[in-house]
Amino acid sequence: MADNDKYWKVLETKQAFKNAWFPIRRDKVLLPNGEIINDFLVSELPDVSQIFALTEDGYVIFVKQYRHAIKQVVLELPAGTFNKNEENAAEAAKRELLEETGYLAKTMIPLGKVYGYPTKDTHAIYMHLALNVENASKTSQDKTEDIEVVKIKVDECLGLIENGELIVAGSIVGVIFATNYLMKHNLV
Amino acid sequence: MADNDKYWKVLETKQAFKNAWFPIRRDKVLLPNGEIINDFLVSELPDVSQIFALTEDGYVIFVKQYRHAIKQVVLELPAGTFNKNEENAAEAAKRELLEETGYLAKTMIPLGKVYGYPTKDTHAIYMHLALNVENASKTSQDKTEDIEVVKIKVDECLGLIENGELIVAGSIVGVIFATNYLMKHNLV
Repeated sequence: MADNDKYWKVLETKQAFKNAWFPIRRDKVLLPNGEIINDFLVSELPDVSQIFALTEDGYVIFVKQYRHAIKQVVLELPAGTFNKNEENAAEAAKRELLEETGYLAKTMIPLGKVYGYPTKDTHAIYMHLALNVENASKTSQDKTEDIEVVKIKVDECLGLIENGELIVAGSIVGVIFATNYLMKHNLV
Repeated sequence: MADNDKYWKVLETKQAFKNAWFPIRRDKVLLPNGEIINDFLVSELPDVSQIFALTEDGYVIFVKQYRHAIKQVVLELPAGTFNKNEENAAEAAKRELLEETGYLAKTMIPLGKVYGYPTKDTHAIYMHLALNVENASKTSQDKTEDIEVVKIKVDECLGLIENGELIVAGSIVGVIFATNYLMKHNLV
């Protein structure tokens, strides 16, 4: 069966929950089997841009912060949301790295994008790698941010996955994508 | 700084969007720096259970289906939501595998859990591995499901990540976790 035959047709769409932080739309959709669903809900969270930032002396810049939805402090790659109409993904990751950690990335290497919850939410996570990042300035965190910078040796990053120290899907994928790139280009 | 010092205190919590498919609560929270946020929104989507199911002849069972939030047909590991009060994660993954693909898993090997969007949503993704799964029955898909079963050689799974054929974060993590386990136990 061709992929095209699997697509749903949107018959109607309207806003179900109007909120700047969590917009949700309600679609009435027609399935290929003729079935109609009146109330398929989709949240439209903004895209996320993420960076695996490597220093010249072989450390990767991680951040450790409290995440309220799961009520845990977690280790993650620096990342943040961005508005596609105002900024591209590479610029956004570079900005987030500087704001959250004080490290400056020069050349950004895009590593593709993945989806976090494609059943229910629109957002993509854009992955980047930057080499030779430098500690450039003081951080400028948002009022909701209380971020600890954690530097980890690049050859210990895959171990963080094996040991269960990385528990956020996007960060695990970012480490895998960056490590694949570094190995392919003989950079580690 | 200790992790405990990073936690937010919930001062008030109420339902912001009452919907069986997309419940959202609004928390008023006190941050460690004394700042109060009146309207931090958290969605409470159910947990997801996922399986890397390996046949005796060395194939992994994937599913290909349309995902309406991103309006694409994507390749994923079999997975589904479950209610923690009614079913454990291993049973849920086994049930989803059978319903979506017709394959029966006997012994389930739990590989831990990760979080998809810990900033905004509560759901965890539980990862499992099952060896020697067997084609046991006809599938029993939901009315919103139109799932194509795709069998891929186990030694080609990491290549799916490198080639950009897997674009869903949870499936990428599931493949990595299962491959790590199989290699550690000399099963591939």
